[in-house]
Amino acid sequence: MSKKEMMRSSALAVIPLGGLEQIGMNITAFEYEDSIIVVDCGLAFPEDDMLGIDLVIPDVTYLKDNIKKVKGFVITHGHEDHIGSLPYVLRDINVPIYATRLTMGIIENKLKEHDLLESTRRKVVTFGQSINLGQFRIEFIKTNHSIVDAAALAIYSPAGIVVHTGDFKVDYTPVFGDSIDLQRFAEIGKKGVLALMCDSTNAEREGFTPSEKTVGRNLDELFEEHDNTRIIIATFASNVDRVQQIINSAHKYGRKVVVEGRSMVNIIETARNLKCLNVPDNTLIELDQLKNYPDEKTVIITTGSQGESMAALSRMANGNHKKIRIGANDTVIFSSHPIPGNEKAVTNVINELLIKGADVIFQDVHVSGHACQEEIKLIYSLVKPRYAIPVHGEFKHLKAQAKLALQLGIPKENIFILRSGDVLELDEHKAEITGSVHAGDIMVDGLGVGDVGNVVLRDRQRLSEDGIIIVTLGIDKISRTIVCGPEIVSRGFVYVKESDELMDEAMAVILESTNDCLDRGVKDIGKIRSAIRDSLGGYVWQKTQRRPMIMPIIMEVSI
Amino acid sequence: MSKKEMMRSSALAVIPLGGLEQIGMNITAFEYEDSIIVVDCGLAFPEDDMLGIDLVIPDVTYLKDNIKKVKGFVITHGHEDHIGSLPYVLRDINVPIYATRLTMGIIENKLKEHDLLESTRRKVVTFGQSINLGQFRIEFIKTNHSIVDAAALAIYSPAGIVVHTGDFKVDYTPVFGDSIDLQRFAEIGKKGVLALMCDSTNAEREGFTPSEKTVGRNLDELFEEHDNTRIIIATFASNVDRVQQIINSAHKYGRKVVVEGRSMVNIIETARNLKCLNVPDNTLIELDQLKNYPDEKTVIITTGSQGESMAALSRMANGNHKKIRIGANDTVIFSSHPIPGNEKAVTNVINELLIKGADVIFQDVHVSGHACQEEIKLIYSLVKPRYAIPVHGEFKHLKAQAKLALQLGIPKENIFILRSGDVLELDEHKAEITGSVHAGDIMVDGLGVGDVGNVVLRDRQRLSEDGIIIVTLGIDKISRTIVCGPEIVSRGFVYVKESDELMDEAMAVILESTNDCLDRGVKDIGKIRSAIRDSLGGYVWQKTQRRPMIMPIIMEVSI
Repeated sequence: MSKKEMMRSSALAVIPLGGLEQIGMNITAFEYEDSIIVVDCGLAFPEDDMLGIDLVIPDVTYLKDNIKKVKGFVITHGHEDHIGSLPYVLRDINVPIYATRLTMGIIENKLKEHDLLESTRRKVVTFGQSINLGQFRIEFIKTNHSIVDAAALAIYSPAGIVVHTGDFKVDYTPVFGDSIDLQRFAEIGKKGVLALMCDSTNAEREGFTPSEKTVGRNLDELFEEHDNTRIIIATFASNVDRVQQIINSAHKYGRKVVVEGRSMVNIIETARNLKCLNVPDNTLIELDQLKNYPDEKTVIITTGSQGESMAALSRMANGNHKKIRIGANDTVIFSSHPIPGNEKAVTNVINELLIKGADVIFQDVHVSGHACQEEIKLIYSLVKPRYAIPVHGEFKHLKAQAKLALQLGIPKENIFILRSGDVLELDEHKAEITGSVHAGDIMVDGLGVGDVGNVVLRDRQRLSEDGIIIVTLGIDKISRTIVCGPEIVSRGFVYVKESDELMDEAMAVILESTNDCLDRGVKDIGKIRSAIRDSLGGYVWQKTQRRPMIMPIIMEVSI
Repeated sequence: MSKKEMMRSSALAVIPLGGLEQIGMNITAFEYEDSIIVVDCGLAFPEDDMLGIDLVIPDVTYLKDNIKKVKGFVITHGHEDHIGSLPYVLRDINVPIYATRLTMGIIENKLKEHDLLESTRRKVVTFGQSINLGQFRIEFIKTNHSIVDAAALAIYSPAGIVVHTGDFKVDYTPVFGDSIDLQRFAEIGKKGVLALMCDSTNAEREGFTPSEKTVGRNLDELFEEHDNTRIIIATFASNVDRVQQIINSAHKYGRKVVVEGRSMVNIIETARNLKCLNVPDNTLIELDQLKNYPDEKTVIITTGSQGESMAALSRMANGNHKKIRIGANDTVIFSSHPIPGNEKAVTNVINELLIKGADVIFQDVHVSGHACQEEIKLIYSLVKPRYAIPVHGEFKHLKAQAKLALQLGIPKENIFILRSGDVLELDEHKAEITGSVHAGDIMVDGLGVGDVGNVVLRDRQRLSEDGIIIVTLGIDKISRTIVCGPEIVSRGFVYVKESDELMDEAMAVILESTNDCLDRGVKDIGKIRSAIRDSLGGYVWQKTQRRPMIMPIIMEVSI
């Protein structure tokens, strides 16, 4: 049965092409008859076992196969997990992008880097505005999040309305722009909403996420307290509101501000150009001017709040930064929480900073950008959807939101936790998962997109654990005798000087198994290779309890 | 100036041989004139960049060089970070071990595995007992910790008394045995204590660590609440008190108990033999008997609370366990907190369990085994040391305890944060770091101890990121022409089928640079290898932006 046949004629299909199995890869197709729109196009960062991989993008085979239907990308906000795959996916799916102002500014920076700016159609949308894409109309609704200009989407289809919150929180006192447009959520809710796709990131947390402004107050206090040291603050580059508040505190307490770290510099420039960031005159200075001011009159805003080894803060902590030395006259503030998986890297940076004598502050200088339980309940109560589709988060987060939805009276059978590729068909009568389409990870390594697969990763894993032993020898094609080698070379196995005896004995093992094959008249080089691999592998295991990759390379020489 | 000359004749030297740079490797030498005693002998688990390494042990060159002085190992408790290196270090430093009953039981299991039981002198010490070792007398003082039979040490030397807390907490209502012997701390404090070496692990946390008994009460509640499902509880194998409480709850609510995971089985057997664990008759059953009981009448106690990939719980979560299938009728309780660095692994296991339908509980079913700020202050106030030497923890923890000591009136110059190898000399007049001795990591990989160093690790790192390309060719010794090959093999670089063109072009690059060398009459094989490495490396980078290791192997063939 083809996908076409499965689908009810008047149903809307919601098809996540990333998400649960690829946390971060937010990309969801909405399909109604001849029209597909794609909400977000994010990338994921590699899992620990994806050795050497730079990033992970979604497999969009389904979109390629239905390219004629695809009307456009509709983007909720400018975080990597919502826009990062665009430069890769656009190569195959060259349809227009719709996004709000700062979101588009960030996307454009990305497209420039990939030389795709000219070839990509783009339209900046304002809050409250709707766009028509085939059978769909999409309205952008103002929300709050840890990046300016985040939007929720009301997706109008002939089968009904889906409200997609994007990533959001409820901030009644935002730093920049308006508070989330709760009235509009209510108004759309009143019309009757088929499904709500709501951010689950903080669904395990009780209460309300505090306003971003609370961070500003804490920053002021810290500036007051540490009035005799330099202040270095690490935060996410994309958190323009946070940067704004740091600049505000700096201005208030008469400090000059240096911005350090490439991504931080880029986004601040973009945000200033779009007037999302207001920097008082004579506040920003260049790194080189730092020496002209006393420590207690300066602030450095930097990347590296997640302990990323190449980011500016890590380089400062490790003493590798070209221009900034950390010392007893520094107060370093982490205006961030470690993202799960980065805890240890962050702690290592904190320890290094402390060892260099700095004072380090890493508590109460951050608030989340995601809605906690009370905010999630609020949105459900305004939107009153028939179906609940928790999105954004690990399984445990989606499950936690599903529990909330149940508490709010949505029947269990109307709550759907979708996996990548699931096809959820829904209309006002019914919702069910009717099948699945191809979806998955594509790994990007350097310039290679998708050329590293599981075989390569397994090899990297093995090489990383025990290294490799390469055995080379040449056999005379006619006489079937060894005419050169064997030579043994190892890398990542054991330091050679410490292993002379091991290598001598290994050589004897190789010679024995090779000569044994040759004596028995074995012609098949593959068999000789296997014999060497088995005998040497066995010997090495017995001596070291390690399993290096063993690569016998046998060349037949014509004399 | 030799170490000997540096040392004041009547001073005690405290020399950590692990610790700050190797968190977990707790091993400290105390030296007075002709006597050295060694407190603890722990191992560290490899850092993320120590690819393929199984564990890390201390470099005890200093002890080897002074072997005649070394009187014995004095062990505070049976955790790996305090005893784990014994089997390795004993090979060179074969001196007696002194420890309390369960600690010695666990050490003996370890010695058996390494076939060292016969050759190692051991003495079980009871609380309150003292042992004389050369110029030292060491008294074992009862404490509380997340393992039974943990001891603090009062180390009496002619230069004064050092109190070493080991890892401890203050538990007024311990599950097994007595509460910490606060009176004895006070009594020794009254005599006048030179230095206090106090556990810093929780020095950043305010208040008091709750009693282990609070966990028992929460367990009872959970057993009552989840009376219609099977219960699976993951905890640390060595936490015998926790296991005792789980068994108590199981017994109370009429459930049979299965113990799963090798280390859990071992330690429970040891603890039962030593009467540190009291199991009611007919409570424990074998895994194979599980099927004879309804789910709601069983409990499985298992290893894997840290998300360790090979532990029993991870195998259950991933569906790889031979006998236990997780389903909707399971309540899985994590009676543990993730150790820093394990957060993501634990979360992955939780998600897998939830996906399989289990209910997962991971909050409020654990208490720490380490003293919080109020307990640390209490010990300082009882012991009233002249000098403070915070131990056990990362730099930030030691620093946090140093702050507490300062608050308690110990002058800044009397507080010492020591690095591995530092020699702190102290007596009642003075304390100072007078020099340092050789100390460091030794990496253990399989049977190899110390044969993997930085060169090997760097190679593993590189192999893990971009793999390896091996180029083999044979050159006629006389005619200087290529007589076999080149052959190209890659592993962990790119999947070969997807890269035919790349490999064809690579072959051309290799041939060109090799023939160029041969044409120019280059005789040095090393130079030809370099030429291949450079040209192929450049080509590959340009095409892929990856830097695989390139290994040209050139054999000279005599025809």
